[in-house]
Amino acid sequence: MADVLAIGAHPDDVELGCGGALLAHVAAGDTVTVLVLTGGEAGPGTANRHQEQRAAAETLGVSLRWGGLLDCSLTPDAATVRLVEGVLEETGADLVYVHAPDDSHQDHRAAAAATRSAARRLPRVLHYQSPSTLTFNPTVFVDVTGFLSGKLVALKAHASQVELSPMVEPDAVVAAARYWGSQARIGYAEAFVPTRMVLDLAPTPRAAPAARREQAQVVAERRAVPRDLAALLD
Amino acid sequence: MADVLAIGAHPDDVELGCGGALLAHVAAGDTVTVLVLTGGEAGPGTANRHQEQRAAAETLGVSLRWGGLLDCSLTPDAATVRLVEGVLEETGADLVYVHAPDDSHQDHRAAAAATRSAARRLPRVLHYQSPSTLTFNPTVFVDVTGFLSGKLVALKAHASQVELSPMVEPDAVVAAARYWGSQARIGYAEAFVPTRMVLDLAPTPRAAPAARREQAQVVAERRAVPRDLAALLD
Amino acid sequence: MADVLAIGAHPDDVELGCGGALLAHVAAGDTVTVLVLTGGEAGPGTANRHQEQRAAAETLGVSLRWGGLLDCSLTPDAATVRLVEGVLEETGADLVYVHAPDDSHQDHRAAAAATRSAARRLPRVLHYQSPSTLTFNPTVFVDVTGFLSGKLVALKAHASQVELSPMVEPDAVVAAARYWGSQARIGYAEAFVPTRMVLDLAPTPRAAPAARREQAQVVAERRAVPRDLAALLD
Amino acid sequence: MADVLAIGAHPDDVELGCGGALLAHVAAGDTVTVLVLTGGEAGPGTANRHQEQRAAAETLGVSLRWGGLLDCSLTPDAATVRLVEGVLEETGADLVYVHAPDDSHQDHRAAAAATRSAARRLPRVLHYQSPSTLTFNPTVFVDVTGFLSGKLVALKAHASQVELSPMVEPDAVVAAARYWGSQARIGYAEAFVPTRMVLDLAPTPRAAPAARREQAQVVAERRAVPRDLAALLD
Amino acid sequence: MADVLAIGAHPDDVELGCGGALLAHVAAGDTVTVLVLTGGEAGPGTANRHQEQRAAAETLGVSLRWGGLLDCSLTPDAATVRLVEGVLEETGADLVYVHAPDDSHQDHRAAAAATRSAARRLPRVLHYQSPSTLTFNPTVFVDVTGFLSGKLVALKAHASQVELSPMVEPDAVVAAARYWGSQARIGYAEAFVPTRMVLDLAPTPRAAPAARREQAQVVAERRAVPRDLAALLD
Amino acid sequence: MADVLAIGAHPDDVELGCGGALLAHVAAGDTVTVLVLTGGEAGPGTANRHQEQRAAAETLGVSLRWGGLLDCSLTPDAATVRLVEGVLEETGADLVYVHAPDDSHQDHRAAAAATRSAARRLPRVLHYQSPSTLTFNPTVFVDVTGFLSGKLVALKAHASQVELSPMVEPDAVVAAARYWGSQARIGYAEAFVPTRMVLDLAPTPRAAPAARREQAQVVAERRAVPRDLAALLD
Repeated sequence: MADVLAIGAHPDDVELGCGGALLAHVAAGDTVTVLVLTGGEAGPGTANRHQEQRAAAETLGVSLRWGGLLDCSLTPDAATVRLVEGVLEETGADLVYVHAPDDSHQDHRAAAAATRSAARRLPRVLHYQSPSTLTFNPTVFVDVTGFLSGKLVALKAHASQVELSPMVEPDAVVAAARYWGSQARIGYAEAFVPTRMVLDLAPTPRAAPAARREQAQVVAERRAVPRDLAALLD
Repeated sequence: MADVLAIGAHPDDVELGCGGALLAHVAAGDTVTVLVLTGGEAGPGTANRHQEQRAAAETLGVSLRWGGLLDCSLTPDAATVRLVEGVLEETGADLVYVHAPDDSHQDHRAAAAATRSAARRLPRVLHYQSPSTLTFNPTVFVDVTGFLSGKLVALKAHASQVELSPMVEPDAVVAAARYWGSQARIGYAEAFVPTRMVLDLAPTPRAAPAARREQAQVVAERRAVPRDLAALLD
Repeated sequence: MADVLAIGAHPDDVELGCGGALLAHVAAGDTVTVLVLTGGEAGPGTANRHQEQRAAAETLGVSLRWGGLLDCSLTPDAATVRLVEGVLEETGADLVYVHAPDDSHQDHRAAAAATRSAARRLPRVLHYQSPSTLTFNPTVFVDVTGFLSGKLVALKAHASQVELSPMVEPDAVVAAARYWGSQARIGYAEAFVPTRMVLDLAPTPRAAPAARREQAQVVAERRAVPRDLAALLD
Repeated sequence: MADVLAIGAHPDDVELGCGGALLAHVAAGDTVTVLVLTGGEAGPGTANRHQEQRAAAETLGVSLRWGGLLDCSLTPDAATVRLVEGVLEETGADLVYVHAPDDSHQDHRAAAAATRSAARRLPRVLHYQSPSTLTFNPTVFVDVTGFLSGKLVALKAHASQVELSPMVEPDAVVAAARYWGSQARIGYAEAFVPTRMVLDLAPTPRAAPAARREQAQVVAERRAVPRDLAALLD
Repeated sequence: MADVLAIGAHPDDVELGCGGALLAHVAAGDTVTVLVLTGGEAGPGTANRHQEQRAAAETLGVSLRWGGLLDCSLTPDAATVRLVEGVLEETGADLVYVHAPDDSHQDHRAAAAATRSAARRLPRVLHYQSPSTLTFNPTVFVDVTGFLSGKLVALKAHASQVELSPMVEPDAVVAAARYWGSQARIGYAEAFVPTRMVLDLAPTPRAAPAARREQAQVVAERRAVPRDLAALLD
Repeated sequence: MADVLAIGAHPDDVELGCGGALLAHVAAGDTVTVLVLTGGEAGPGTANRHQEQRAAAETLGVSLRWGGLLDCSLTPDAATVRLVEGVLEETGADLVYVHAPDDSHQDHRAAAAATRSAARRLPRVLHYQSPSTLTFNPTVFVDVTGFLSGKLVALKAHASQVELSPMVEPDAVVAAARYWGSQARIGYAEAFVPTRMVLDLAPTPRAAPAARREQAQVVAERRAVPRDLAALLD
């Protein structure tokens, strides 16, 4: 069982980008937290966006955290990095989903950059696609055939965006899932670009992140030091 | 439990490229088959290469298949594609490891191309690095910290290459594992470039490939057909 | 009015890859020729493939040419290059559509490579996507909203493939058109990667290729030669 | 007839990057507007830069707009995005030219990023090359053989830069045009990297942007919604 | 003999990234300056970082300059660009080493961007790898087989980081050198991505940067101007 | 002093791609050999191509070797690889120039692939641009300002191509040199993409290749073997 953190710049970003994968995680018994960095103040129909996001999180079965930052003003500076670091530590996440780095929306770029910085020691960081994402060459996929209707239900909770934003088109969401499904050679899929993705092949019990790091430290101390250079490192 | 197929152009290619990951698969109870396409007739010390490869496969705990093709003459033509298709069908593999496509050795390029063609409907194809691989930007990693000594034992079984080929350097194998480990934020790692990699998040029972395809077919029939175009497709 | 040549390795490749764009060309009054390099002998249901292709060409309103080569044996050698050169000359094409170069099917790669060689002096070469295409980062799009049903009709003419080949899925074709449409910020689109694409902005009358080359020659002779090096070039 | 908007960070950027294409647009009867985001206050010879830019616009036959921002302080923040959005709406542009995103000058990067954000729903965004552009792999070209002397005349209007800036070298402009011309297989060319470029193949009358969006909306409502998911979207 | 400038965002960045190459430059008689842009105030063990950096510079045999900026607050704005420009002018550097542009640390990205801007007219800019670097495809290498122990000695001078920062692992430094060495077909190597790298093949005496530019100017004036456009440029 | 080998598929390829760099090597006292793999039998004006190539080599001051293969039939198979290996051994070359791998001419692709295979243990392999080269992102440059007229003289020796082949345009050669010169921030340049390029910074005497390999072997034996894995490698 994994601890998963999904990060979006605005309400609805996570649902659009990886709502199906989050439902698959929940179905697998993983603990999922969604961090929404801003309140979506600059979008259309801003009155109910907190409420919409809470409803969406509920349909997904995930915990919801707010970053408290301002829509359209996100920057990947030290404060944003620390904010994400804090949530990573509190949730003990070992897998993070976030925006793709090449995106025409400045907030999406900032969310991706700040997360890559905060998660710099994490072995699993996956980037999802938004309607404004530019270059995107996914190689990792999640089968969402059984979770697509659940994803649409969650998306529908963001009624203001579905109705008012020309970038949120549910039929395009379904078409994209089918497109990536054909690319992944399965029915419907969500697509991801990894910054890095360590697979779990062997049945090692998943230790808490802190314990993992200690273990890695121990390993690191014993290895890969050429014998004639060892004296310099002791 | 997965059925894994690892394909190499020559004896020792698979051990060098993904020996640690294969050991992790074996440890996880997966069934692993290694397909060696040629007999390594053009390398140094060719007398014992079949025997060396059999010994290596034994230390890894994997089944061994020979392609019966000729070293330095591999081409990604229809015959080679059919050969790989045959082994894919017989093993029922749902995950394939093979050379990276950009490699200075013509046989490695051919093995990668023929495998990508034969595995065109398979959702999991990972490319490993060889000493002659050129561009290689891995994003998927396997933790081999616990399997590195086993990998070296398997490699050592290819004594003729370790002793005679300037491209097979065990210390460079260890350094690469540590390098990719630091890139993956774990101890030691093997690194992979996916053609595509579908993750198993939800606890869906793994059906046999044939059954999966039928299921996908059913899903496909019901979906993603715009209503006004549906008549054209019936 | 342009002369367009669309090249596919097998019957149905062109319909899948750029059927909508070809219909748009026909609607614009352009002359369109389709060159099918092989007879599709290796696919399922081979008996009627010539007949299916002729029917498809008829629904599109395009001329049909056969390359007479053998399915699964296509190579980008001098003979194939000359074959494509011949059709380019006869049709006087100033825009060519062909497979994307990175494709898991060896025939598709060969068709792309031979065409890029044959069209080496042509200013407009666009690559379309096939179900087996690998890396594909399109930046040029054609609006096929009004031509999608016509594309499906043409595709349906290839009944053997639609029914028997697991790679030909009409619903995935529609989903891909919608996906690329959302990427292109229009309704439905076909997507293309240019080797090079010269836009027609100014109302220059389109000269025949031969005449264009002469004109370019004249320009070239007058220009870009540094004065102190000019003597060396006279 | 198209409405074209060309955006540059400083006076002379647009002339250097796409002066020839703008002349081709003017010759074709298109309406062309140039938006210069800053006054070039940090460059050499700043006294006359507004005047020089007005003269250059006049020789090109284009309308000129000023962004009123400060040279070397451009950022792709919400304010800059809104500024560009405003000009896009007022001009009704359906094709935008702007700097390439990978450029060593921070203002050029900011102009590209803000424009990609502001033009997020526009189907035609082309990036031009500046002397400080870094990675640049153009695939779309415009034949400027007949407009090169006009481009040089426009560039010469920026006398302060031609004389004082080591990055503005008219002979390098001519050489680049010949280089891209040889890459495009024509005489002289300007080269572009598309974020996306929808071609106009069929003789659809160009509607005003607003009308186009409504039309696309109508299309979108009717399509690509899988039948069993439709209820969720109504 | 060359004048080399190596730029790092924090104390220890230059030692980690190109310490071996700097020792090779010193051994070749080149003059080497290290510019550390911030004081590393945000890292662990900040008390002695200036002192540690001075000690490291001494073991390398290089001059040390401080940028006086603040750790975790570096931005590639006009002020940072001017700071780097100033050091470039004072040192007369004709080769610059700096962070790779794609890095998860915001300061590293900023250092790379500001340096590429400041060095926009310099023909030799090489990017080194940091533990936080993301995409990195080096093609240029320096043999550090004879300088690796010296690099470790310099790194050891940054005792606070070696002991406290999980990103600074000397054994990983050695493994990376061996990995890149195997990629470069030598023993141990440091790896670099060039923005641009002009090789010195012919025995031209290296003129000071200013003189070089004048010479280039003279050449530029005489050349590459098409004869019929020349009048426009006089 | 270096031993340089420049490889071209046809007579005139080397002159077009790196004639200026070869003149710079000769001026520096390096020994330069040109290997022309085919006789150019398929080009226009084939009668005198051997003679033209000999004249060109003479004006460059380089040795000439013929591969004896057939124009338009080059393949990167074992025989071609062995041919190039042979010339590499005989010349003791430590730097190789060859075609770029992505080229529309099948012979150019084959020459690049066979050379990358044959030179798999060589630390310096640079790819030059041909008129038919496709993707080309050079980062390494050679200043040919003083050698451009010499390059044109050598090119002129291939009179049949300059006069008859539409792909050989001397004015485009000059424009490309100026274009790459502006990219490299020098006057005129030739541009190269390295497979790998080890720089010579320190004044190590250049040993013959064989000796270098032995030395590397010795170094390799002593290093980078984790202590607890060492037993496995002895």
